[in-house]
Amino acid sequence: MAVHERTEPLSEPPRVGIVGAGQLARMLCEAASELGVQTVVLAADPADAAVATAGSFQLGRPTDPGALRALATRCDVLTLDHELVDRATLAELEATGSVVAPAAEALACAADKSVQRRRFAAAGIPVPEFVVLGPGDAGDTPADVLSRFADRLGAVPVVKAATGGYDGRGVVVTTALDQAIAATTEWLGSGVAVVAEAPVAFRTELAALLARRPDGGLAAWRTVRTAQVGGVCREVRVPGGLDDELDERARALAARVAEVVGVVGVLAVELFDVDGALVVNEVATRPHNSGHWTIEGSTTSQFENHLRAILSLPLGDTSTVAGAVCTVNVFGADGSPPRLHDALSVPGAHVHRYGKAPRPGRKLGHVTVVGDDDDDVARRAWEAAVALGTPRLELAAPR
Amino acid sequence: MAVHERTEPLSEPPRVGIVGAGQLARMLCEAASELGVQTVVLAADPADAAVATAGSFQLGRPTDPGALRALATRCDVLTLDHELVDRATLAELEATGSVVAPAAEALACAADKSVQRRRFAAAGIPVPEFVVLGPGDAGDTPADVLSRFADRLGAVPVVKAATGGYDGRGVVVTTALDQAIAATTEWLGSGVAVVAEAPVAFRTELAALLARRPDGGLAAWRTVRTAQVGGVCREVRVPGGLDDELDERARALAARVAEVVGVVGVLAVELFDVDGALVVNEVATRPHNSGHWTIEGSTTSQFENHLRAILSLPLGDTSTVAGAVCTVNVFGADGSPPRLHDALSVPGAHVHRYGKAPRPGRKLGHVTVVGDDDDDVARRAWEAAVALGTPRLELAAPR
Repeated sequence: MAVHERTEPLSEPPRVGIVGAGQLARMLCEAASELGVQTVVLAADPADAAVATAGSFQLGRPTDPGALRALATRCDVLTLDHELVDRATLAELEATGSVVAPAAEALACAADKSVQRRRFAAAGIPVPEFVVLGPGDAGDTPADVLSRFADRLGAVPVVKAATGGYDGRGVVVTTALDQAIAATTEWLGSGVAVVAEAPVAFRTELAALLARRPDGGLAAWRTVRTAQVGGVCREVRVPGGLDDELDERARALAARVAEVVGVVGVLAVELFDVDGALVVNEVATRPHNSGHWTIEGSTTSQFENHLRAILSLPLGDTSTVAGAVCTVNVFGADGSPPRLHDALSVPGAHVHRYGKAPRPGRKLGHVTVVGDDDDDVARRAWEAAVALGTPRLELAAPR
Repeated sequence: MAVHERTEPLSEPPRVGIVGAGQLARMLCEAASELGVQTVVLAADPADAAVATAGSFQLGRPTDPGALRALATRCDVLTLDHELVDRATLAELEATGSVVAPAAEALACAADKSVQRRRFAAAGIPVPEFVVLGPGDAGDTPADVLSRFADRLGAVPVVKAATGGYDGRGVVVTTALDQAIAATTEWLGSGVAVVAEAPVAFRTELAALLARRPDGGLAAWRTVRTAQVGGVCREVRVPGGLDDELDERARALAARVAEVVGVVGVLAVELFDVDGALVVNEVATRPHNSGHWTIEGSTTSQFENHLRAILSLPLGDTSTVAGAVCTVNVFGADGSPPRLHDALSVPGAHVHRYGKAPRPGRKLGHVTVVGDDDDDVARRAWEAAVALGTPRLELAAPR
């Protein structure tokens, strides 16, 4: 897919506008500070995670056309902290000469699961069997459609709100057809399309990560194994028992996805391993939780390469710097204060905190440990993450 | 030496005030952002390097007692970007319960060469033979004192302004006695004491770097070899041909210096290797240019360990992560724009830019390359630094 090439020279220093001011924006700003790239974040609240680290901030909502237009005038390129933005205004800004990366059309693949599934299926990218239900569909009721689909699958479909979901929200995995129908009916009633999919009996969950320049040049990191609970990523292991052959296949698939999406910047592709066959679960057209390990575990982090890509600069080396890397997310729990002292006493623990007020279930930070042994780095990362307050989790053995 | 132990618990998140807002403050703020530590910088100008990255800033001069007092009320601990601060006010703040790290008494060893030389000589730490000339000294003229000292040495002494110098400024190295006398007379006339020292015929220049907690706990990095031109550091190599035995001796000497200084936070000790004997050249009681390599070259950077130390948190692992690391400084030159694209096309080049407007001779950034071969990483670091505009330099072969 064609992407917008920069036609004007970059400012010196280059100026990047980030729509949204969560932890991804914060870590982008950390990388930008090192490179001497100026950042402006569009923040809904001055207490948002990225405001303290950004060069400057603009108060406003990512769904406000005026705010997006104002941000664009201040920057060489606009990029995104999340998908819940006004895509029509981004497309309008592109049409009038602003550089938006990823472009609105690429973003649609991440922000709208119905667009994504149709585009991927048309391109021959392996996705679960699916049907799309639109809020204005005439004819069969959602119950009829889902019942017939369930009969064909021999299983209750997973139902997903096409837009607005994240971190497991907007997805219902159930063996009760009436629950799937109820969720679907509710989303359709609020004007949101629904994707119903065959449930996938996967062996493992993987994530492939790459950065893509406007000229199509790619740099891919090692494929990782993720552990998700309720659709929320809890742990990332590199290489996590994934052999080189599987890594190669995942990278090749992600490269095809990148072309189809037409992404500029980082692309994360969450994959299911179904008896060795790879199926695309979700995609994100931005830095992603499955790539936080790259800050210490790779020569170039996903945040730095995202900046390089959207600024049409050369991509950095994506080699892994050690034999084993593990990242564990930190979530708010019962309100007891984080034991920062204890977390920092864990040898080699790289503690990242996002400056967010703790709330139960809120993603507050992550810990990465780099070393030689898969189980050893995971043990240490969990020890530090638990000291910071995340609930300990007994994950299934990784292989 | 006794140091002030924290008596009150840290805020959550901890709040660090930084006096001065140059590149060291900026890199401290980058490390603080990752740890979720809040920063406030005292900046003389909103365009100062650290303002864009700090959590917030306070406009004011580091020599203004009122500004220092106001900053102290906002923070758990005050620390320093440079030595040119009002030490009397820092001492007053300590006396009234504020935590200042390094403490004013430790800072004196870095900020006043006459204090440092006398304290080190009294403690048996090897320094060049020296005499101190005070601005109010009665009796012999500076010319008399320096002539007699030169006769005794059989060489013209190096003369240094005791306070106010940095990066080679405030130091005169000459073989013409009248030049040494003229500089000394000028400094004394402006009320600044002068240290005259035996010139040191050194083989190499080294730097030892460590972090020290209030309880005296130390973590030391690998000793590095530095290349200085006119008193300005141009290149740092790790290990730079320094063998383990020399590394051990340099670390042991730096640990003694740390005790004598009573530093809390990072201490850099610049050393001369004089036919295998180590002599202390300069010390800095803060993160130091010779330690920028630790950002990518060590498990824990000097900036993170400085924060950990001053907050009484456990120190992080100071292991070197690769066989060879080189950092090259970037200085402003002829005003041609930096070729960021070319710098980032150098494999493995970690580009750091400080967000400072370019001026000839101004330190604008640095580049670090991590690898296996000493000459290879140096070649790449120089290539990227030259692309960013620093003048290429033919340094003497490192051994």
